[in-house]
Amino acid sequence: MADIARLAGVSTSTVSRALSHSPLVNQETRDRILDLARSLNYTINIGAQNLRLQQNRTVAVVIPIEQATRQQLSDPFFLSMLGSLADALSDQGFDILVSRVDADQVDAAAAPFDGGRAIGVILIGQGRHHAELNKMAARGVPFVVWGAQLPQQLYTTVGGDNVTGGRLATERLLAQGRRRIAFFGDTSLPEVEQRYRGYVEALAAHGLSPDPQLHVASSFLPESGGQSVAELARRGVAYDALFASSDLLAMKSIHAMRAQGKDIPADVAVVGYDDIELSSYFHPPLTTVAQPRDVAARALVDALLVLVDGRGAPSVQLPTELIVRASA
Amino acid sequence: MADIARLAGVSTSTVSRALSHSPLVNQETRDRILDLARSLNYTINIGAQNLRLQQNRTVAVVIPIEQATRQQLSDPFFLSMLGSLADALSDQGFDILVSRVDADQVDAAAAPFDGGRAIGVILIGQGRHHAELNKMAARGVPFVVWGAQLPQQLYTTVGGDNVTGGRLATERLLAQGRRRIAFFGDTSLPEVEQRYRGYVEALAAHGLSPDPQLHVASSFLPESGGQSVAELARRGVAYDALFASSDLLAMKSIHAMRAQGKDIPADVAVVGYDDIELSSYFHPPLTTVAQPRDVAARALVDALLVLVDGRGAPSVQLPTELIVRASA
Repeated sequence: MADIARLAGVSTSTVSRALSHSPLVNQETRDRILDLARSLNYTINIGAQNLRLQQNRTVAVVIPIEQATRQQLSDPFFLSMLGSLADALSDQGFDILVSRVDADQVDAAAAPFDGGRAIGVILIGQGRHHAELNKMAARGVPFVVWGAQLPQQLYTTVGGDNVTGGRLATERLLAQGRRRIAFFGDTSLPEVEQRYRGYVEALAAHGLSPDPQLHVASSFLPESGGQSVAELARRGVAYDALFASSDLLAMKSIHAMRAQGKDIPADVAVVGYDDIELSSYFHPPLTTVAQPRDVAARALVDALLVLVDGRGAPSVQLPTELIVRASA
Repeated sequence: MADIARLAGVSTSTVSRALSHSPLVNQETRDRILDLARSLNYTINIGAQNLRLQQNRTVAVVIPIEQATRQQLSDPFFLSMLGSLADALSDQGFDILVSRVDADQVDAAAAPFDGGRAIGVILIGQGRHHAELNKMAARGVPFVVWGAQLPQQLYTTVGGDNVTGGRLATERLLAQGRRRIAFFGDTSLPEVEQRYRGYVEALAAHGLSPDPQLHVASSFLPESGGQSVAELARRGVAYDALFASSDLLAMKSIHAMRAQGKDIPADVAVVGYDDIELSSYFHPPLTTVAQPRDVAARALVDALLVLVDGRGAPSVQLPTELIVRASA
C-alpha cells in the first residue's frame, strides 16, 4: 500500500479509503488508485509470471527511432547491439521480437508486453523521454534499457561508464599534444552529456576550459558527420583533434575532413566511441572507447529475467576502455 | 490428389488406396502419404490461414549461421538486410521474430511457423541446403529465401542478378587495365558461384581464362579477408586486382594488403559486392556491386504474404548495379 501511495502521490490513508470505495475520496483519485493497485497486483503475481514464462519464450527488443528518419535501424551500433542481444537471448532459448518505436513515444515500447506477445522488453536506447520510461516502470512493465543511469530513475539501465569514457578519449588527445579538441555530440542525450562531462573534466585537469566554438551538437544520424565538419569550417575555427561521440560519427567526419584535404591523424587526431567492428579495419584504424556489447547484452537479458520474476533488478554500469589504434 | 502423388513419388491410385487405408499399400508408404495429405490440407485451408493472419501479425526472419561460428549474426550484410526487412515489415504492421538456425539444419527455420508463432518465414541466406528447403516447400511451409534461383527449385527466392553483378565487377577491373584479377569467394554457395560465372564470362570476353591460382575459396567469415590475402602471398602469385564476393571481405582484404605495404587502388584495384552502408565512407570509398536491399525486402515481404494467402509466388531476380567509387 505504501507503494501505491507513493506512485499515486497520496497518503496511505487515502489509498486505504480508495480501496474500500469510501465516498471521502473523489472518483478520479479513486479510479487512479484502483488502476495502480490492479497493475501492481498483476505484476507481483509471481505464479502468473512463471506460467507466462513457461508458455511464452519471447522477449521484445525495441529500438527508438528519431521521427525525422528511419535510418537509425541501420545504425551500426544499434545493429551490433541487436546482434549481441540475439546471441544472448537465443543462448537462453528465447525468441526475439524486434520492433521500432518513435523516439518521442517510447512508451509504445510496452506494447509487445501489454499485448501478451512478449514477457518483457529490452530497449536499445533511452531517447530523451526519461519521464515516460519512469511511468512504464511505475505501472510494472518488465523492461530494461541500454542507456545512462539518471537521478530519480525508476527503471533499470545497463550502460557503459560514459564519463570515464569521455575522459579517456580526451586524455588520449591531450597526451598527443593536441589542445584545440572539437567535441561532436548532442548533449541533450544522457549518454552524450556524460561523455561531454568526461571531456570537460579531462580538459580542466590540463588547465583548459571547453571552447563552445569547438562543440557541435551533432546527432547520430548518418549525414551528421559531414554536416558537423562543415559547421566547424563555417565557424572558421581551427582544431587539431576531434572527440566524436560515436564511431559512425567519427568515420563520417574523417571522410569529410579528408575531402577538405586534411590528413588523419597528422592534421586532426580523432577518437570515436563504441568500438564497432569496423573501427578495426577502417583507414586509419580508429582509436575509440570500447563499450562491452556482449557483456552488456548478457547483463540486459539477466536483468530482464529478474524483473519478469517479480524482483527488483539494480542498474548496471559497465567499465569502458580506450582502444588505441591509429587515428589518435 | 495429383499434388500428393507427385510429392510422394507414387501414382494417384496408390494415393487413393493409402487414403482409404487399403492393405495393398505398405505401412511406411501409407504413413508418408497420410502425413503429406495432412500438411497439404492444412496449408490449403485458406479460411484457416486468413484467420491466422488476423490473429497473428508476426513474421519470422531467420538467419542461417555457419556452425563453426556465431559471428554471422554480426555480418554487416545480414544486419542491413534485417534492418530493411524490419522497415518493410513494420510498414505493413507486422512484428518480426528473429532467430538463427544452424546453416546445416535450415529446416529448423520452419519451427516458428510449425509452432504457430509466425505466419511465415523469411530466410536471409540459402546456405548449401537447397534440398532441405525444397522439402519445406513441399510440405507447405510458407517461406521465402533471399538467395539465388536454382534449377528444380520448389521454393520462392528473391535475389540479385549475381551473374551480371560478377560481370560488371570484373569488367570494371579489366577497363582499368588490370589483367591479373584475383577472385575471393566460396563457389559452393549458389550466389557466389553465379558471381564467379560472371567473372569468368567477363574474362572470356577479353580473351582471358580464369587462373586457378588467383581463386581463393574465401568464406564470408570476418577473418577470411586476412587469410585469403595471406594465401595469395603463400602461393607467390602476382595480382593487380581483386574481385571480392562481399564488401566485408573486400575491406578486410584491403586492410591486410595495406599491412603488406600495398597501395589501393594503385597496386591492387578492388571491387566488393553488396554496397553495404560503410562502403561509401571506407578508405578508399569502395567500388562495389549494389544489391537493392530495400526493394528486396519489400519483394520478400510481398512474396511471403502471397504464399500465406495460399497462392504461388514466383521467384524474383532484381537487377544489380555497379557503384563506382575510388577503390577501382
